[in-house]
Amino acid sequence: ARPKVGYFYSGQPVNNILSDFIKNLKVENIKSTPVVVSEDTTVYDAIVTLFLEDVGTIYVHNKGMLTGVVSRKDFLKIAIGNTDIHKVPVGVIMTRMPNIAFVRDEDSAYDAAAKIIEHEVDSVPVVEPITCENGKAGFKITGKVSKTNITRLFYDLCNDKLGGF
Amino acid sequence: ARPKVGYFYSGQPVNNILSDFIKNLKVENIKSTPVVVSEDTTVYDAIVTLFLEDVGTIYVHNKGMLTGVVSRKDFLKIAIGNTDIHKVPVGVIMTRMPNIAFVRDEDSAYDAAAKIIEHEVDSVPVVEPITCENGKAGFKITGKVSKTNITRLFYDLCNDKLGGF
Repeated sequence: ARPKVGYFYSGQPVNNILSDFIKNLKVENIKSTPVVVSEDTTVYDAIVTLFLEDVGTIYVHNKGMLTGVVSRKDFLKIAIGNTDIHKVPVGVIMTRMPNIAFVRDEDSAYDAAAKIIEHEVDSVPVVEPITCENGKAGFKITGKVSKTNITRLFYDLCNDKLGGF
Repeated sequence: ARPKVGYFYSGQPVNNILSDFIKNLKVENIKSTPVVVSEDTTVYDAIVTLFLEDVGTIYVHNKGMLTGVVSRKDFLKIAIGNTDIHKVPVGVIMTRMPNIAFVRDEDSAYDAAAKIIEHEVDSVPVVEPITCENGKAGFKITGKVSKTNITRLFYDLCNDKLGGF
């Protein structure tokens, strides 16, 4: 175990200590690699990618710009219906911008958890603003924060693995 | 906002404060209602239940005793295959006891997060030991703790909603 340094004194309630600590953890320190496909990828191929990469959410781009998101739940709904998943592209079934909750690198782990809980989603993409070829403003995807990331963070908080923060 | 009471003094590192606080939160205080079906339920009916109840995991019982678990990921894998989901019962595709990680009411929120991360599952059932008709020992399902519960707890930790603990 690491030596115990940085001893702490405070007149703050313990909830505030927790709150301050968590709000200082940045998205860039907890985000993981996003899995991104293009809009013309078939639903079937996107599902195969979901399994191969072992993720719960697929992000969709058009010329590098975030345009949509498809969750395991969305895929399951399509898979049990009458849709031909070998023909329909993910662009048809995805949730489209601007209806996607996202975070930025400089947001806190708390901000990411708040977006996930308040929007009732499994993950949020981490984005950076970019300007498209046609001059339209948009976002490129640089990562994601999922319920798994938050659960792992919660787990690590008790395991002395967060010395670097 | 609640009045700030219970001011805190300690010579402990902040990680230890967090760790102690989190390890004192009990499963019984954060668990949610499990969705349980019997082994002879068809895969299709179980998926419909998954959507109606808006959960990510279905637990399976036989005469009140926990026998299996099926996740959204398991269902998706079956749904894109050649299985007739209207005929096959969940008992055929479920992960069976004893290969199910579970927790008890008196375990901590940390224990639940640890089981979820270490076993790479979306949720763990909360169980109590029972004795079956044939005298065999087993568990009945009294709740579940999912990544959503842990993410919500993390969120609440920053929102001053945990005064009761």
